[in-house]
Amino acid sequence: MELTPRIAILGAGPSGLAQLRAFESARNSDPGRIPDIVCYEKQRDWGGMWNYTWRTGLDENGEPVHASMYRYLWSNGPKECLEFADYSFEEHFGRPIPSYPPRAVLQDYIMGRVEQSDVRKYIRFNTAVRWVSYSEQTRKFTVTVMDHDRDVLESSEFDHVIVATGHFSTPNVPQFDGLEQFPGRVLHAHDFRDAREFAGKRLLLVGSSYSAEDIGTQCYKYGAAEITFSYRSNPLGHAWPAGMSEVPLLTGVDGNVAHFQDGSTREVDAIVLCTGYQHHFPFLPDELTLRTNNRLYPRDIYKGIFFQENPRLMYLGMQDQYFTFNMFDAQAWYARDVILGRIQLPDSETRQQDIEHWRGREESLGTATEEIDFQAAYIRDLVTPTDYPEFQVEKQGELFKQWKLDKKKDIMGYRNRSYTSTLTGTISPPLHDDWMNILDDSSESFLQNEFSSPAAAPHPARTATTRPHTTAPRAAEQITVSRPAARAVTGKPVRQLPNPRPAAAIRTARTGHRASPASA
Amino acid sequence: MELTPRIAILGAGPSGLAQLRAFESARNSDPGRIPDIVCYEKQRDWGGMWNYTWRTGLDENGEPVHASMYRYLWSNGPKECLEFADYSFEEHFGRPIPSYPPRAVLQDYIMGRVEQSDVRKYIRFNTAVRWVSYSEQTRKFTVTVMDHDRDVLESSEFDHVIVATGHFSTPNVPQFDGLEQFPGRVLHAHDFRDAREFAGKRLLLVGSSYSAEDIGTQCYKYGAAEITFSYRSNPLGHAWPAGMSEVPLLTGVDGNVAHFQDGSTREVDAIVLCTGYQHHFPFLPDELTLRTNNRLYPRDIYKGIFFQENPRLMYLGMQDQYFTFNMFDAQAWYARDVILGRIQLPDSETRQQDIEHWRGREESLGTATEEIDFQAAYIRDLVTPTDYPEFQVEKQGELFKQWKLDKKKDIMGYRNRSYTSTLTGTISPPLHDDWMNILDDSSESFLQNEFSSPAAAPHPARTATTRPHTTAPRAAEQITVSRPAARAVTGKPVRQLPNPRPAAAIRTARTGHRASPASA
Repeated sequence: MELTPRIAILGAGPSGLAQLRAFESARNSDPGRIPDIVCYEKQRDWGGMWNYTWRTGLDENGEPVHASMYRYLWSNGPKECLEFADYSFEEHFGRPIPSYPPRAVLQDYIMGRVEQSDVRKYIRFNTAVRWVSYSEQTRKFTVTVMDHDRDVLESSEFDHVIVATGHFSTPNVPQFDGLEQFPGRVLHAHDFRDAREFAGKRLLLVGSSYSAEDIGTQCYKYGAAEITFSYRSNPLGHAWPAGMSEVPLLTGVDGNVAHFQDGSTREVDAIVLCTGYQHHFPFLPDELTLRTNNRLYPRDIYKGIFFQENPRLMYLGMQDQYFTFNMFDAQAWYARDVILGRIQLPDSETRQQDIEHWRGREESLGTATEEIDFQAAYIRDLVTPTDYPEFQVEKQGELFKQWKLDKKKDIMGYRNRSYTSTLTGTISPPLHDDWMNILDDSSESFLQNEFSSPAAAPHPARTATTRPHTTAPRAAEQITVSRPAARAVTGKPVRQLPNPRPAAAIRTARTGHRASPASA
Repeated sequence: MELTPRIAILGAGPSGLAQLRAFESARNSDPGRIPDIVCYEKQRDWGGMWNYTWRTGLDENGEPVHASMYRYLWSNGPKECLEFADYSFEEHFGRPIPSYPPRAVLQDYIMGRVEQSDVRKYIRFNTAVRWVSYSEQTRKFTVTVMDHDRDVLESSEFDHVIVATGHFSTPNVPQFDGLEQFPGRVLHAHDFRDAREFAGKRLLLVGSSYSAEDIGTQCYKYGAAEITFSYRSNPLGHAWPAGMSEVPLLTGVDGNVAHFQDGSTREVDAIVLCTGYQHHFPFLPDELTLRTNNRLYPRDIYKGIFFQENPRLMYLGMQDQYFTFNMFDAQAWYARDVILGRIQLPDSETRQQDIEHWRGREESLGTATEEIDFQAAYIRDLVTPTDYPEFQVEKQGELFKQWKLDKKKDIMGYRNRSYTSTLTGTISPPLHDDWMNILDDSSESFLQNEFSSPAAAPHPARTATTRPHTTAPRAAEQITVSRPAARAVTGKPVRQLPNPRPAAAIRTARTGHRASPASA
């Protein structure tokens, strides 16, 4: 009889948790064949990127802070596109909720999914992976970790290592001339936390991808005086409101004056470098390290998972992502089945041919529509041979395409749109107010709304039946969000922002039923 | 004949550079006996903490940023207390300069010292140490480094490893209730860069040591609206000007309202955690790791250098510091002589007794005066058996005591004082203006002054012979430092701050002769 294999999962974020759930699912059907699993997580809780923290730079243990999550993040894609195949939002919240939930609400759903399983016991929290080595002789990995609770290093042997440490944590931070002398804050998007810090400020965002777009719109929402996006090749190209605009690439700063490639200049008060992230695995030796930029099909991993040089090493979630949580699930179920021997890996040459085939397809992609179809096909390829619950990946792909159009149409208002769940067929109710007006995005505040039915309210901001925002902010917690005089042209009124207090609402939501209105 | 020993020096900051110079000095006198040396430095240049960077958190390679250095730092102790034994400030700058130079001027001196030697060739820049192991069998260390220029990991064997990575780079960051919801910037002193970011802001500094004191006074100088220090046990206790004050320990924040242990509250716009640093050696296995808090005599290192469990491993500069550069020199010369066999290490038990002896003395210390004398005695103990040039460590100690008194007398003005060089006997000239008025602290601006003789001008700010500030700031570079209306009671005028441009002045100074006035 073969010895029970030992598996190390590095990271307890969405990918690592998917892997734990995949094994848990198999354990329920065939308890005898499950390997010994240890999941190492450097944070004190699971959820990876979704653990919001005020910390930046290094954490309390001197480890690089994992989260790039910011205070007022909302889902920037429809929740219908990230719904788990076997767990609808409706089931979790006990009723339909709008398509674009804020961070805390989305986190509640993701964590609600994993809390239904019994996987927490596998996780070693507050434990950072220091080093992984592989012995050709024993065919085992040695994983060395720092247990910060006990302040000791320890090493263990494993038959498989699954790297699920994400790739949106290590910022890519280019140099621009003059930043040493810039008289305001310069930060990478990774360190962005609370938009209110920039109220009244003229903000320069360098970059033209999701970070720039989302941090820019958010800072505008919370009272920034002016938003300038600087792009390298192509502008975001949205129809921006007054006070937001795009310029070519930053060439340098002189004092507080930013200079751009077209010769134009602009005074700015703070600079956010939205210049992307690096795949970064400082705990891996060269021969085990995946080297890739952020793309839909990184080379060197078969099926987007198995490291070609040594397929006992696996990577999850290392792709650029339209699909997220359910793609991680698809990868985790496939990886599990290979480890359990349910799927046989082909030989190296066949794997390489498969990689080249997908890579060739990826390189021929031109449009977002094609990219979405490509990633859907990749996921379909993964789920087909496993027992992962059937989910309508192609239909979710269609929702992504609609999302792209909606965003193009109205960058400041696309989160007011509604989409149909591929699981339940329910059209999501609209937001209780225009997204731009919802400053308190706490779970408590959000979930106290009785969202009206979508048929009755196709455009939430203009619908009388939408329930008004009923929580009167307490005086001590009021924060005025105002725009400076120069921006009065946009006609935005001074608004009151209650200090969000999500904790209670999360507790309520976690019971799986409707949260009581705060007034009850 | 014995093989040439191989030495790895980890870090090319002041400590590592001292070690390189120590060997270089021996090579000049006895070239046959010098070991092979490799110095690994993760930054792109030498100087360690003195390399100012706008970066915070992680650097361009995804490595934690080393520097805690900030834009407008001035020496917070007299330069006469950190003068190298064989290289006076007067020699470097070609004339006497004031006792408290700004960052760039001090850096110029420190780097000028090392540039006179031929040690750059030993340094592998942009190379981060990943892992160090020791084999009892071979009695050799294996040092694994990441060469970011070539993007490869490599391992080499060494007979000795000298850890010179500093201990003011990994922040100690406690949690306070409510920081997740705080609507402004929260940062550790490690990430503090440019005081002008906080102009007009109400700043809370948590901590009561050098970081809090210096960042607080600096932000006040550059226009912060209000400075509040929060202390755990003892206030700094200085006579603060209007707008600066001290309160007991922060208990938490509620929105932008900070609560303190005495029940008082204060609205603040930003929070700087000046809560110290950790000794952090993520590249060392437990059995080689020095575990200590910041103190004058860490346990487990004989002579403050040799790791007791394995004295082939050495640490430099791990003490709390009154003395700095010349203490690192003393340690480096002693370490060198042990490696070269000029000094024989006693057996483990004798070393332990010596450690206990010094530790016992340290634990009996009560006052700053006693601490200064203790550290002077420690340095004297190190330099006596080596050929390090005689320097007047006890006399420098007396200067430290005077500095303590001067600071106590006038925290906002102690940098206007003058001290006597123990090397040259010269009394330093006064600053060209009151320290509080000197907003442009670039090397260029500072060194263009013809500092008057100290006899003629005992108090620089009130002396007509002091040369006025002659550089007219260029219009495009002017930055107004103003205080909000509420602070007008302090009577401070609006001032103009030219954009500092230190590069040219550094070049000039490096010739070793008087820098020309900018008007020439």
